Amino acid sequence: MFKFRVLATALALASSVSAAWAFEALPTEAPAPADNPTTEAKVELGKMLYHDPRLSSTGTVACASCHNTMLGGEDNRPNSMGVNGQTGGRSAPTVWNAAFNKVQFWDGRAESLEAQAAGPVTNPIEMGMKSWDDVVARLKTIDGYQEAFAAAFPGGEISKDTATKAIAAYERTLITPNSAYDKYANGDQSALTEQQVRGLNKAAELGCTSCHSGPAFNGGGSFQKFPLHENGYFEAQYHFMKDKGVAEVSKNPADEHLFKVPTLRNVALTAPYFHNGSVKTLDQAVKLMAKLQLDKDLPKQDVDDIVAFLNALTGEFPKQTMPRLPGTPDKTFNYD
Amino acid sequence: MFKFRVLATALALASSVSAAWAFEALPTEAPAPADNPTTEAKVELGKMLYHDPRLSSTGTVACASCHNTMLGGEDNRPNSMGVNGQTGGRSAPTVWNAAFNKVQFWDGRAESLEAQAAGPVTNPIEMGMKSWDDVVARLKTIDGYQEAFAAAFPGGEISKDTATKAIAAYERTLITPNSAYDKYANGDQSALTEQQVRGLNKAAELGCTSCHSGPAFNGGGSFQKFPLHENGYFEAQYHFMKDKGVAEVSKNPADEHLFKVPTLRNVALTAPYFHNGSVKTLDQAVKLMAKLQLDKDLPKQDVDDIVAFLNALTGEFPKQTMPRLPGTPDKTFNYD
Repeated sequence: MFKFRVLATALALASSVSAAWAFEALPTEAPAPADNPTTEAKVELGKMLYHDPRLSSTGTVACASCHNTMLGGEDNRPNSMGVNGQTGGRSAPTVWNAAFNKVQFWDGRAESLEAQAAGPVTNPIEMGMKSWDDVVARLKTIDGYQEAFAAAFPGGEISKDTATKAIAAYERTLITPNSAYDKYANGDQSALTEQQVRGLNKAAELGCTSCHSGPAFNGGGSFQKFPLHENGYFEAQYHFMKDKGVAEVSKNPADEHLFKVPTLRNVALTAPYFHNGSVKTLDQAVKLMAKLQLDKDLPKQDVDDIVAFLNALTGEFPKQTMPRLPGTPDKTFNYD
Repeated sequence: MFKFRVLATALALASSVSAAWAFEALPTEAPAPADNPTTEAKVELGKMLYHDPRLSSTGTVACASCHNTMLGGEDNRPNSMGVNGQTGGRSAPTVWNAAFNKVQFWDGRAESLEAQAAGPVTNPIEMGMKSWDDVVARLKTIDGYQEAFAAAFPGGEISKDTATKAIAAYERTLITPNSAYDKYANGDQSALTEQQVRGLNKAAELGCTSCHSGPAFNGGGSFQKFPLHENGYFEAQYHFMKDKGVAEVSKNPADEHLFKVPTLRNVALTAPYFHNGSVKTLDQAVKLMAKLQLDKDLPKQDVDDIVAFLNALTGEFPKQTMPRLPGTPDKTFNYD
């Protein structure tokens, strides 16, 4: 990973980046766990499963429905819509670069992409399957999946374990390198505008990047309290406090309002914002973060500069071929 | 189009194809109307629009949701599920080879792919947009669409007319050539099994192919009464008679129970069957068609042979790249 203190390159610019800033370009490959090495066959299978609506009770909702890789890796809705038009209370996080989150879900309750992939399939308001046994039984009746699992796993077992491993392997390929920021980090001084450099400096100076740190601007796997400052300014309007974050899972009062720090990569493409998707625009999100996390009222110029910088975090989306979902000749599932 | 009477080649087979049968391989290109020539830029734009859920009121339903090209061109549900989990009374027809239907929809109310594409977007139980003006207004705010329309159309106008033309142009590329049947039609005598040849002969002899005629086995643009024989055998069970077909649109009693003849291409992949999706398997569909259209009780062997033949109509699905759907930086639509 390319990483350097910025002194040498950026001081030449009209607006230089603070010496305190450590550049880290986004890695182009994501590390895989020892028990799930990334292979081409597994990625292909995972891509099929990820896009297959037959993994839902109604046959209408795939992983890709709410985490749409043709878009910014989510659905641009405040809350996603699962089977039978149901909605939940949280906004779908992007799947792009999710491989660089050490934990998954807003409350971090999944410690890996594999564990995350298991969740929505049997969530009654998301993909609505009664059990993974039902998913596996369905997949086993599809000849093309038997072949694809056999190609991806020794023994070719079709199970919750292999299916979620394949989906995770595919998700590890969903990386968006070469953003303007990355090009700048790799030495191309023309890649960022002056305003974007000002925005980056301001974000670092304010402390935004203390939490949104590292190459994915997601603090690795850290949790932070949100809102941190209960200054009441936006609370009533946006109802941020309703969702107790990590505490909803742990039932530990000390975890109240703790949330996983989301990546800022491609953040310009993933409106609306925050765990409940209640904030429609990036400038509003930046203002709110300054107020609620730093107890500061940011002047418009600073907001604009930071938004300009955040736009520099939009990466290059790799070309993908559509998976061919194996047919079910002469078969109709009992969809809800 | 390759077309020949079968005498010379097929007589050598143990089970030869009837001399009355005229082979017609599926064309590999679909004719475009004079006012909408197929161009690469238009197809690319159409593919984007076809896969973009932002063309629906909730931001969750794209054309591809119910007419899924990764599957058999539809959703394998009895009735599709539109916005907010709503379902209608008819089963989604496949988009694959729809270019070879002279009319579209089960009741044939659209005379072109262009006209068809306009329908579901503003249907309240399908994509739920209030008007095409709303769709156009939304598309106009997306920079990437402004560019894509400019590349596809002189002047680059974003309108219902150009959007539906682009979608139709993309749909004209959705052709599945080289089925076993096509290979046989093109002279490869080993492409069909003996059973499939028997099934084809039986289908022709019974008269199935009188209506399911032509290279797409869809009777060109013909309408037929279904059920034709009101022998009551399956009527009560499947409620076929509730839907009055063309008469639902025309209000003319003479059109009652008239339906567009659906293509048999890839029929093995598009269960469940019939306009209301009430029949789960292909053998049941074949038995029902014989009973209701020909007033015949088919022996099991004939049903099996015809099903084997129908499986020979599954074609090759062209590889597709996923469209990159243009982002909406800093923008949130007011989704339902």
